[in-house]
Amino acid sequence: MTTIQHLDVGCWRIPLPVVLSDSTHGEMTHFEVVTVRLGDEDGAEGVGYTYTVGAAGLAAQVLIDRYAREHLIGADPGRIEHLWHKLWWALHYGGRGGTVSLAVSAIDMALFDMAARRAGLPLWRHLGGHDRRVPCYAGGIDLYFTLDELLSQTDTNLKKGFRAIKMKVGRDRLSEDVERVAAMRSHLGADFPLMVDANMRWTPDEAIRAARAFQPYDLTWLEEPTIPDDVAGHARIVAEGGMPIAAGENLHTLFEFKQLIAAGGVTFPEPDVTNCGGVSTFMKIAHLAEAFNLPVTSHGAHDVTVHLLAAVPNRSFLEVHGFGLERFIEHPLVIEDGMAVAPDDRPGHGLVFDWQGLARHAAA
Amino acid sequence: MTTIQHLDVGCWRIPLPVVLSDSTHGEMTHFEVVTVRLGDEDGAEGVGYTYTVGAAGLAAQVLIDRYAREHLIGADPGRIEHLWHKLWWALHYGGRGGTVSLAVSAIDMALFDMAARRAGLPLWRHLGGHDRRVPCYAGGIDLYFTLDELLSQTDTNLKKGFRAIKMKVGRDRLSEDVERVAAMRSHLGADFPLMVDANMRWTPDEAIRAARAFQPYDLTWLEEPTIPDDVAGHARIVAEGGMPIAAGENLHTLFEFKQLIAAGGVTFPEPDVTNCGGVSTFMKIAHLAEAFNLPVTSHGAHDVTVHLLAAVPNRSFLEVHGFGLERFIEHPLVIEDGMAVAPDDRPGHGLVFDWQGLARHAAA
Repeated sequence: MTTIQHLDVGCWRIPLPVVLSDSTHGEMTHFEVVTVRLGDEDGAEGVGYTYTVGAAGLAAQVLIDRYAREHLIGADPGRIEHLWHKLWWALHYGGRGGTVSLAVSAIDMALFDMAARRAGLPLWRHLGGHDRRVPCYAGGIDLYFTLDELLSQTDTNLKKGFRAIKMKVGRDRLSEDVERVAAMRSHLGADFPLMVDANMRWTPDEAIRAARAFQPYDLTWLEEPTIPDDVAGHARIVAEGGMPIAAGENLHTLFEFKQLIAAGGVTFPEPDVTNCGGVSTFMKIAHLAEAFNLPVTSHGAHDVTVHLLAAVPNRSFLEVHGFGLERFIEHPLVIEDGMAVAPDDRPGHGLVFDWQGLARHAAA
Repeated sequence: MTTIQHLDVGCWRIPLPVVLSDSTHGEMTHFEVVTVRLGDEDGAEGVGYTYTVGAAGLAAQVLIDRYAREHLIGADPGRIEHLWHKLWWALHYGGRGGTVSLAVSAIDMALFDMAARRAGLPLWRHLGGHDRRVPCYAGGIDLYFTLDELLSQTDTNLKKGFRAIKMKVGRDRLSEDVERVAAMRSHLGADFPLMVDANMRWTPDEAIRAARAFQPYDLTWLEEPTIPDDVAGHARIVAEGGMPIAAGENLHTLFEFKQLIAAGGVTFPEPDVTNCGGVSTFMKIAHLAEAFNLPVTSHGAHDVTVHLLAAVPNRSFLEVHGFGLERFIEHPLVIEDGMAVAPDDRPGHGLVFDWQGLARHAAA
């Protein structure tokens, strides 16, 4: 048995290449990345991270640095379930989801990276090894783009090799959303996978109205139609809207996914490995979806998530969208024939940060 | 209109008078208090706080100091709903419950204190003014006390004027719990309100077994029989256990209470004003319970919560248990004839901290 000897945590506040807007988060100028580096007594290392759309990152850093540290140093890094539950209960009263889930996710990712590297396996093989080629889509944050800008972004994505695209909806008037969706379908042609994302903008009835209005355009899914807290509302939207529903980027526990899935409130569960509880929880959610005969998709962190979807048989599309984090990563995601390809030539998740580049954006 | 000009936030790590244990949190040696002081341009002040059983307090402080501050300074303190939702959405991606709910609760409490003081009303009158006398109980953290210690603590509580008592259950063997409950019932006599608290120790089936074993002892409620995430499990425990169920101290949103209440999973909702979202959310939960023909009880922070239960017609017992925070408070809670009495002689919640005393326990 080896033990964890080192824990480095950093919070980096990185300007976005362009200011982004969606229907809920207002203008986003920066994103935050919180990184975790674990080292054991043999010199083995594991790297994990979480991120935010601009707020709460420093709190995640404090949770890891000031509270999780004492449970990690000296512990066996191979007992991930044991450590996960130790952290969960140590932080339960002041946490139970929320920012604590972000903090635990980053730690858990580092533990899995270390375990896979120790086993000499790329993470996707360590976790199940289904198929390293994963369908993927380009996620645009384009709600307030003009139609010309939207189509131009789409052409750029097609040139990059994407064979599926997601656009934002949730403008003030539904007719504008419908017009933009119609233009995109016409631009892309029949059968091209097209998704829309409302970022929790609507009430359930507004979402049902929108879903019905979108039906002629053969969408792959409608994402986050309403707030994640409304399980019964999601079930109504699925039943009455007549369209597959993706949701989950703002759910922070396995139990929240279980509630939504068991209620029939989601057709494409979409956990984010950096806020659902980490690799441990993402895999449980993927397997839970399999048990309910549902596909699993993803949100954010595509460089790591490609491994998780490559591991499981019920994987659906990987979201490719990283806020420009690829500027700080050595090996960017490889996309071939519209498929993201999990790396097979290096152990762990294989993500190598440019630590010097990040250091220029220290948030503290 | 006035605007908020000052925001002071502190995190204090306070040793417990004695080391405490329950079935879930292990040994607790300290608790953390995070205080918020708001001041407006006229010199009006509002004070709020949240607390933890020892972890995550510094993260709540960071959320307030580094992220909430920019939304508060310069804002109209009278538009509490507006500010609440501004903070909720600003911190939603990295939060949505968890530690963010603790941070928002402390801010919201300070805003309500300021509003009531501006109106010249004690908080219980500002919020509805039902009845300033609120039934209350002494909450013991006594799972590993010997039977003699348990009965001796009980006698002390009776001498202090308590006319209702809650004890811990969830020992390794159910027969030990039953024996202790039987001894307490015998000691207190028939009809004396006695509650038990399992601190999430059990599976639903273990809880049902325990509830049935406790039935001969006429308990007022069984509290937190299982993890707060298991809504369906709670509904089974209520339906099959044959005993009223209290739950809610670890629920962090109005929506979580709605789910549990609407599912029939709780008979005594017990929000904690310092972690459910503040006075705003506590009052909504109390009114939601009223709509479902349910009483509302409480967890923690009795000095402020006495006002909230005094405001509403469906108030049940106030939990009196403060980790010894009364050492740092000018006017301790008044108990007369087993009833806690909301202060009527000072505006706001009337809680005045000993700031110099707290300063000796700064956590940073």
